[in-house]
Amino acid sequence: MSTVGRRVQALTLLHEDRLFPADSNPRAVARRLFATIRDLPILSPHGHTSAAWFAHNQPFPDPAKLFVQPDHYVFRMLYSQGVSLEDLEIGVPELKDPRRVWRIFADYYYLFRGTPTRLWLDYAFQELFGLSERLCSKTADLYYDTIAEKLLTPEFLPRALYERFRLDVLATTDSPLEALADHQAIRDSGWKARIIPTFRPDPVVDPEFAGFRENVARLGVMTGEDTRTFPGYLRALESTRARFKQLGCTATDHGHPTARTANLSLDGAAKLFDLVLSGRARAEDQELFRAQMLSEMACMSVKDGLVMQIHPGSARNHNRQVYERYGRDMGADIPTATDYVHALRPLLDRYGNEPNFTLILFTLDESAYSRELAPLAGHYPCLRLGPPWWFHDSPEGMQRFREYVTETAGFYNTVGFNDDTRAFLSIPARHDVARRTDCSLLAKLVVEHRLDEDEAFEVAHDLTYKLVRSAYKL
Amino acid sequence: MSTVGRRVQALTLLHEDRLFPADSNPRAVARRLFATIRDLPILSPHGHTSAAWFAHNQPFPDPAKLFVQPDHYVFRMLYSQGVSLEDLEIGVPELKDPRRVWRIFADYYYLFRGTPTRLWLDYAFQELFGLSERLCSKTADLYYDTIAEKLLTPEFLPRALYERFRLDVLATTDSPLEALADHQAIRDSGWKARIIPTFRPDPVVDPEFAGFRENVARLGVMTGEDTRTFPGYLRALESTRARFKQLGCTATDHGHPTARTANLSLDGAAKLFDLVLSGRARAEDQELFRAQMLSEMACMSVKDGLVMQIHPGSARNHNRQVYERYGRDMGADIPTATDYVHALRPLLDRYGNEPNFTLILFTLDESAYSRELAPLAGHYPCLRLGPPWWFHDSPEGMQRFREYVTETAGFYNTVGFNDDTRAFLSIPARHDVARRTDCSLLAKLVVEHRLDEDEAFEVAHDLTYKLVRSAYKL
Amino acid sequence: MSTVGRRVQALTLLHEDRLFPADSNPRAVARRLFATIRDLPILSPHGHTSAAWFAHNQPFPDPAKLFVQPDHYVFRMLYSQGVSLEDLEIGVPELKDPRRVWRIFADYYYLFRGTPTRLWLDYAFQELFGLSERLCSKTADLYYDTIAEKLLTPEFLPRALYERFRLDVLATTDSPLEALADHQAIRDSGWKARIIPTFRPDPVVDPEFAGFRENVARLGVMTGEDTRTFPGYLRALESTRARFKQLGCTATDHGHPTARTANLSLDGAAKLFDLVLSGRARAEDQELFRAQMLSEMACMSVKDGLVMQIHPGSARNHNRQVYERYGRDMGADIPTATDYVHALRPLLDRYGNEPNFTLILFTLDESAYSRELAPLAGHYPCLRLGPPWWFHDSPEGMQRFREYVTETAGFYNTVGFNDDTRAFLSIPARHDVARRTDCSLLAKLVVEHRLDEDEAFEVAHDLTYKLVRSAYKL
Repeated sequence: MSTVGRRVQALTLLHEDRLFPADSNPRAVARRLFATIRDLPILSPHGHTSAAWFAHNQPFPDPAKLFVQPDHYVFRMLYSQGVSLEDLEIGVPELKDPRRVWRIFADYYYLFRGTPTRLWLDYAFQELFGLSERLCSKTADLYYDTIAEKLLTPEFLPRALYERFRLDVLATTDSPLEALADHQAIRDSGWKARIIPTFRPDPVVDPEFAGFRENVARLGVMTGEDTRTFPGYLRALESTRARFKQLGCTATDHGHPTARTANLSLDGAAKLFDLVLSGRARAEDQELFRAQMLSEMACMSVKDGLVMQIHPGSARNHNRQVYERYGRDMGADIPTATDYVHALRPLLDRYGNEPNFTLILFTLDESAYSRELAPLAGHYPCLRLGPPWWFHDSPEGMQRFREYVTETAGFYNTVGFNDDTRAFLSIPARHDVARRTDCSLLAKLVVEHRLDEDEAFEVAHDLTYKLVRSAYKL
Repeated sequence: MSTVGRRVQALTLLHEDRLFPADSNPRAVARRLFATIRDLPILSPHGHTSAAWFAHNQPFPDPAKLFVQPDHYVFRMLYSQGVSLEDLEIGVPELKDPRRVWRIFADYYYLFRGTPTRLWLDYAFQELFGLSERLCSKTADLYYDTIAEKLLTPEFLPRALYERFRLDVLATTDSPLEALADHQAIRDSGWKARIIPTFRPDPVVDPEFAGFRENVARLGVMTGEDTRTFPGYLRALESTRARFKQLGCTATDHGHPTARTANLSLDGAAKLFDLVLSGRARAEDQELFRAQMLSEMACMSVKDGLVMQIHPGSARNHNRQVYERYGRDMGADIPTATDYVHALRPLLDRYGNEPNFTLILFTLDESAYSRELAPLAGHYPCLRLGPPWWFHDSPEGMQRFREYVTETAGFYNTVGFNDDTRAFLSIPARHDVARRTDCSLLAKLVVEHRLDEDEAFEVAHDLTYKLVRSAYKL
Repeated sequence: MSTVGRRVQALTLLHEDRLFPADSNPRAVARRLFATIRDLPILSPHGHTSAAWFAHNQPFPDPAKLFVQPDHYVFRMLYSQGVSLEDLEIGVPELKDPRRVWRIFADYYYLFRGTPTRLWLDYAFQELFGLSERLCSKTADLYYDTIAEKLLTPEFLPRALYERFRLDVLATTDSPLEALADHQAIRDSGWKARIIPTFRPDPVVDPEFAGFRENVARLGVMTGEDTRTFPGYLRALESTRARFKQLGCTATDHGHPTARTANLSLDGAAKLFDLVLSGRARAEDQELFRAQMLSEMACMSVKDGLVMQIHPGSARNHNRQVYERYGRDMGADIPTATDYVHALRPLLDRYGNEPNFTLILFTLDESAYSRELAPLAGHYPCLRLGPPWWFHDSPEGMQRFREYVTETAGFYNTVGFNDDTRAFLSIPARHDVARRTDCSLLAKLVVEHRLDEDEAFEVAHDLTYKLVRSAYKL
């Protein structure tokens, strides 16, 4: 236990036993379990990286642009402690003074103590860039120079990293209005990697999405359907899903404010569509339309086999002043209490027992884990539970997830890990944290004699690989 | 630690230190505590076994009929992973191919890893049937044959098992429309066992219960009261409670969708009764009637001393298709968020400070433990907290219960364990899990010097025996 | 581990390793961390002690009057188990038979097993009064006599205890109608202690507060403003805040039933003020007025720099019969579910990004920690999270707080510990529990290699001292 007993700083950023239990018995079991899964390939079935990186295979930009500017986990914490978004050059396409931004980040790096961001960043700093002294004001320039230099080398080009990370599958998230030219370019290039799109129709099914009406019209142009009528609109969505499937897509994703679903008649749904398209719909109508569209998406999934994911419960753009100045995705999305039991009932009434249907549920409201989500997933054949999401994608969050859901839903109604990130360099770190945390939890079950060790080895492998592949039909 | 350090399967299903902390210090304390309570008699003041078993004392049927068909914990998990209810012969009175059902169960037994069902079943398999190799496809027939054979022996008749389990009291749950002939027959037989009914009036106080109006009419016939009038209806309930008391009943139980109570005037309540009996009541009226009836039941408890239990917060029969085909209790009851603070206020305003009144609260919404239930029970003299219920009747669930309520309500506003089961053979296993888990938690307090060890011995005994007896007036 | 391995009672009430992890590795780290903070001065920026004690410096009364009568943690537990408030002489100004009250308390002292009250009381009994045998019926008189005797000695006068406790700052909580004569008297006495008021305007901003209209009128008299008009009312509040500041006040506090805020126009707010002052306002109007007043208080804080604290979510005086007989604060305040995300939005829309504004949020609803509070505090520069409050001010409660908020908000969006007590003698005990619990949590992070040990020392110090001083502008 090299960091214990001294008040000096550790000589490395990462300890080989990190995230394992302190007690020697479960730690030994966790080590054994982890040894069998640490080198398994990475399946990344849900995330937000850019296909363009792999299509063009250009070097990543400077350290600030790579680690600070796009990562709202990072800049929301800095902002919360009084660092201005101007000083971080947030929203600036070409950074004027990336080294200055980096230095600010280094000055405040202590804020991330105890957070998963710290674990992810330290992993990237050490494992990718060979850094071993902690980031702080004093080491800021050393970090900047080391990272900047390496980013220009061939080993740090996107495709090289993809291979180095042992990725088997990497899914992006894409609008139906996206031509997917970069995905096509990757395929055409002959490079043997499996980078696949995910169908995320929020821009054309959420009447409150910026530009909704124009988006629907554009969908009509792209598909040759008359999206001014509800049947044409549905056909346009169906054919776009088919287009995504041709490029390897296996799943859809839906980011509504609630998990509400509906079961309107065809006529009722068509009238509601006319209303929302007219721009005269009230908030309730818009919510009902989103609800109905979740059920329509389920209906299409039953037919075309795309796995459906629902990510509900975020109050987006909560900070009005920041939104007005900087726009969406500025670290001000805040979870709210989320009901699943009543919200999902209309959809489940219709499709809950369909054998060819998979619906993966996520939550930002942990109180729903044992109360609603595990009981639902432990009954309905279509339901699976997505891994801890967003703010809960962390050692404590993952531990709570397993402790709250396993006893009711078991391991086999869960789907393994999602890294869910736009920070490509953090992907191995995130999977490392997830694998270690799962091994720690399994080790605890083993030493408390709640699970035999031979079974724990199988479960560890299933959580890392098999369940991901089967749930996402990879 | 015999299962640690090897990747082979354990030689027994149960380790003697199961559910104890991994660390040797608390484990040693837990062992010492458990040694003093493991052989205490079992008090089972709330459950769903059948008095008929003990009245008739016939052999239990085959393994599938015993372990799979009646246990919705079991078949809901199988169903959630795509096993059809047809294949499990759910709802079939006489199984056509019980061995086939058993084999399916064995094939999927790995699904129960990490669940309490696995702990309960392994206990019964080993302790009752002497099985020591894990259930799987390969051992399915060995299990089937072993269990089937033993079930026909005298040691496995219901009364023999009751005695072997060291049951001191076993409470069933019964409708007011139940004649309780089996309870009478047990008494008449001269067999010295204490099997007592619990008064559960849902069929005659919940207007949404199937057959409510006919049930109320039948209650009138059974009691000789005119249940078309509210006073007659209340008298009928009172006299039925008295009939239950004569057969040893000490408690009532109430399974409403919410914990809502009301304080209507006698006249207002009578008018509402007329409305719900007319069949023209809206959903709000029905909810208000249930609320008023909880307060009426409290009023009767103040008079006749029956302990009142409320089990709220389940959205029953959530799966419409399964309900339409198979009916109630098919594993599709899902918890919802439950308020206690406002819901109970009308009842507590009237009876909250009555010295002769005990109201035991249960929850499916764990977020209420520290927020509402512990503060309420830590103040009102009538209130006690029931043990973790249903989906939370598990090692992690029990641990959360104690961690969330003890600091505010203490140990002495809780009432010990309920097995709450219709699976008679699982009763010793469930109490074993509860006793071990309590000892583990107490051991943690002892080694962290938050409780002296001599006190922990007393608390362990109180949680297992004394608090059950006093809370349920046994 | 002196209490382990024996069934006899411990020889002291407190073990030197209490609240540290059982495992020897994290325990060793916790010990090292604690050694560096155990003797730091106490900052008490939020509490309910009385300035009069220090102004007059008279002996505290008898043991029952000191430990039982004013402490609703104590008498709510006794009441919950059937002890009558009459027998405890609650509400009686001069106790008739304090020794009898003390003996009842001693008889029932076992009820506090596993509660923080037990930890706090044992600490005071041993560390202040030198008692080493556990309080019980047998030792009741020994305790009574020992405590009663010591209370009359000079070492136990309020000012002597303040110095013995190493208090650096002690904040009281005060109504705007309070003349603060005791605070002035302390200053005038030349005694070098920092006892400061906190501005708590509930009596004049909550229309449901007893005597609201008279209170507002009296505020007018005290400030020379015409508080029958909204502008005069606001000026009266501003000048009262200034008066508090002159006596060292750095913070305000707000105990509303919800966290709701509003953004009415000046005209709309003025009309609402007229309505609530007329006494004809409905419940919704009263709630809206409280909401608007939170925003007005934020506006004043932006100007005068007073730190704002919100303590929402308690259903006050839940027990009607107890309230009617004994009045407020009788242990019957029960938490309810609390929304922050929507409730705070109007206030944050206006002041959320103000650099000179600090708003400290508290909760009684732990489900909000990871879902709402940590994400909010991890983004808005004005927001900080107050420590676990009231029912959650306990080892398990503190552990949950850190586990639920740290990964999203970090350590540096929290503000250290509040003892929040009117039980002056419990202050060192409460800080002892908080410091030990924080060290245990940090030790766990260290041995799991999630935080380097040198960083843990810094964090331990920051949580105990630096963050308190900076958050409360002390």
